[in-house]
Order: sequence, then structure tokens, then C-alpha cells
Amino acid sequence: MDKTKKVSITVIRRLPRYYRYLSDLKREGIERISSDDLSVRMGVTASQIRQDLNNFGGFGQQGYGYNVIMLHSEIARILGLNKNFKAIIIGAGNMGHALANYPNFSERGYEIVGIFDNSKDLIGTFAKEHDTSKSSEIRDIAKIKEFVSKNQVDIAMLTVPSLYTKDIAEMAVSLGIKALWNFSPMDLKLPGDVVIENVHLSDSLMVLGYRLKTLEIEG
Amino acid sequence: MDKTKKVSITVIRRLPRYYRYLSDLKREGIERISSDDLSVRMGVTASQIRQDLNNFGGFGQQGYGYNVIMLHSEIARILGLNKNFKAIIIGAGNMGHALANYPNFSERGYEIVGIFDNSKDLIGTFAKEHDTSKSSEIRDIAKIKEFVSKNQVDIAMLTVPSLYTKDIAEMAVSLGIKALWNFSPMDLKLPGDVVIENVHLSDSLMVLGYRLKTLEIEG
Repeated sequence: MDKTKKVSITVIRRLPRYYRYLSDLKREGIERISSDDLSVRMGVTASQIRQDLNNFGGFGQQGYGYNVIMLHSEIARILGLNKNFKAIIIGAGNMGHALANYPNFSERGYEIVGIFDNSKDLIGTFAKEHDTSKSSEIRDIAKIKEFVSKNQVDIAMLTVPSLYTKDIAEMAVSLGIKALWNFSPMDLKLPGDVVIENVHLSDSLMVLGYRLKTLEIEG
Repeated sequence: MDKTKKVSITVIRRLPRYYRYLSDLKREGIERISSDDLSVRMGVTASQIRQDLNNFGGFGQQGYGYNVIMLHSEIARILGLNKNFKAIIIGAGNMGHALANYPNFSERGYEIVGIFDNSKDLIGTFAKEHDTSKSSEIRDIAKIKEFVSKNQVDIAMLTVPSLYTKDIAEMAVSLGIKALWNFSPMDLKLPGDVVIENVHLSDSLMVLGYRLKTLEIEG
């Protein structure tokens, strides 16, 4: 039985943060931690932590706290970090280059296997710094169909201008890609069984502005 | 009396999304909308919408719905989008360039007034596309103190390698900057009255991976 099925997406959205904090604890050699101590570190209430983590069974024990290694690996399993997802980037502009060089994706089991653009100036150049392997080479978007038919591609990261996002997204889905990570400032929606995460950088900036205005220090 | 003081940060974090949807409605010329219709568009429950928006007083009326223009401008006011915040970017790598060219910040009242790096190759080049004004020129980080003393700077956007983030952040705060937007994959924390938003791109990617694994289409 897969216990994770019943967990709400709201709780799932908080798991990456737990994962990061537990990674830090592991690195520091801390073997167990109480919800109170974790609460102080993370700046959320202990009751929220207990409620969230209770969703995944009995990792916490009264008077003992949480076993860091067990909880860390269980959250990794729930998030599917052991799946070794393969991703392509479509759009090799500044944001595409930034994603190609982002240090944390491969650690988390997300491998960037191809990068595509339509610019003659970019095709044939390398997007990952100090990496001239095929996975770093910017390929002609005209060749994407052939690439996807020959390689496992789970995720398309879309870093194209908003005007083209929908067309490019539909094209990716037509090739069988089931997950889209969209960086255009728009809520991309498509019918069918495709999962989409829209990243809205402005949202986070607006919250920063609000907190600056009200000097709300605790986020 | 400032009614916004009592609103929880959890609700505030949802406001940018309301703002985006209301902007779309305004653009479409829609003058009023029921919580049910807004619920369908946004993919959240009508009761959540009513609960969130009730925090800001009586914008919704039974049988009428919400007045789009009023609600839009009230949310803009709460978020401080009329404040014309001035920002600098520290770190003119790929992510710094991506932020310099992100289309939505200036529309929201966030103006990028300076960009800094320590690389001799970058200093003197222009970060914003098709823009050779002073606000687009990459400046020597050694001149940042002088710049901040002469110009209004509310926000520092930090796009430097994680190793340097804390030092650069402390330097920015020592110059009087009160808000930091951090793109390094770490939870930056500093003492004192400085507000910090940490952007964790991997978190969103991990949620995408979870939803792909479970084929959870509704986010």
C-alpha cells in the first residue's frame, strides 16, 4: 500500500524544505532531533511539524524525537528523489543557462540530458560551464522530436518568452513528455495528464516588498 | 488604522497569485466575479478565496461577487506595488542576467537601478538586453558602497555562489539595505531587522517530480 497517496499537496509542497533541513542535520552528524528543536531551526511551529510528519507514519517517538537519517530517506523516497528523472531545457537564454548550471538539481536526482534553442548563434555552443559533453551542447529545436524518441525525457524545463510558451509546451506534450516546469510569467495550463509547475519569480519578490513595507522580519 | 497588520504571512503569500488572476480579469474587461467563478479559474476552493479575501474587508457582496478593479487595486496597495522599490543585483552571472531581463518586475513597481560583479570580464558590459543606460551597466563590486550612499536602494538581489552569499549579504546589510532576495540554494538568515526571501528553485522541481511520480495533475 502506498501511504503517500492520501497526503495533501499542501503538505507535499512543504516536504522539500524538511528535506533541506534534514540534509543539513545529517551533514552536521546529528542523529535525532525533537520537533521543538526542529521548530526553532525551521521557524515553523512544532505542532505544524508533528502534524506534517505524522502523515508519513511513526517517525517521531515521545521523548526521543525524530531519527534524522530515517526521516531524511523517507522524505526522499516520498518525493521520488531516487527516481533519477531526466530533464531537457527548452530555451537557452539567460534563465536556461542559469538552470543548466544550477548546482542542486543533479544532487537531487534530476539530470539535464539536453538543451534546445532555435538561435543559430547558440546552437552548437555549450550551456554548462566547464562541460563540453553532449548533455551541455545546445541543440537545434528542430531536432527535438528525434532526440525525445531516442532518449528518456521525463521533464521539460521551459525558459522561452511567454509568447511561445503554450506552443512549445503543447509540442513537448505531443512528444510524450509528462511534466513541465514553466518559467514564463504566466500560469500555463494544458488539458490531459500532464503535470505543470509554474515558477513565478515575481510572487516571491512581491512578498519581499510587503515584508519590507511592514518590516515583517519572520517569513 | 492599517488593517493589513493582522493578516498572517500565509495569506500574504497567496496574494500575488490573486493579483495575477485579477490582472488577467481586468485585461479581459471583466468587472465583477463570484468566488465560485474565481475558484474555477484559480483551481482553489471558493471557501478558501472567501476566507482569504475577507481579511481585507468587504469586497465581496452576496449575489454580486467581487468588484475586480477595487479588489485588484486593494491587493496592489496591500502588497506595496505602488511603492516603487529600487533594487540592485549582486552577481551578474546567468541568474543575474536573467533577473535583469525578467519582464515583470518593473510592471510591479520594482526597478533595477544597479548591477554589480567582481569579474573584470563583466564590469563595463551591459546586463539588460537592448539597454545601454547606466542602470544596465555591470559595475565593479568595489564601488558598491559609494553607489548605495548616493542612490536609494531598498532591495539587494543576491545571485552569487553559495560560498559568498553570507559575506555579501552582511556587506549589503551594513550599507543599510533592508531587504534581501537570495537565489543561492541555502536558507540565508541574518540577525537584526532585515527581511530575507530565499528562492529555492529545487523545491519546486521536487514537487514536480512528486506529482509526476504519482500523476497528481492538480497542483
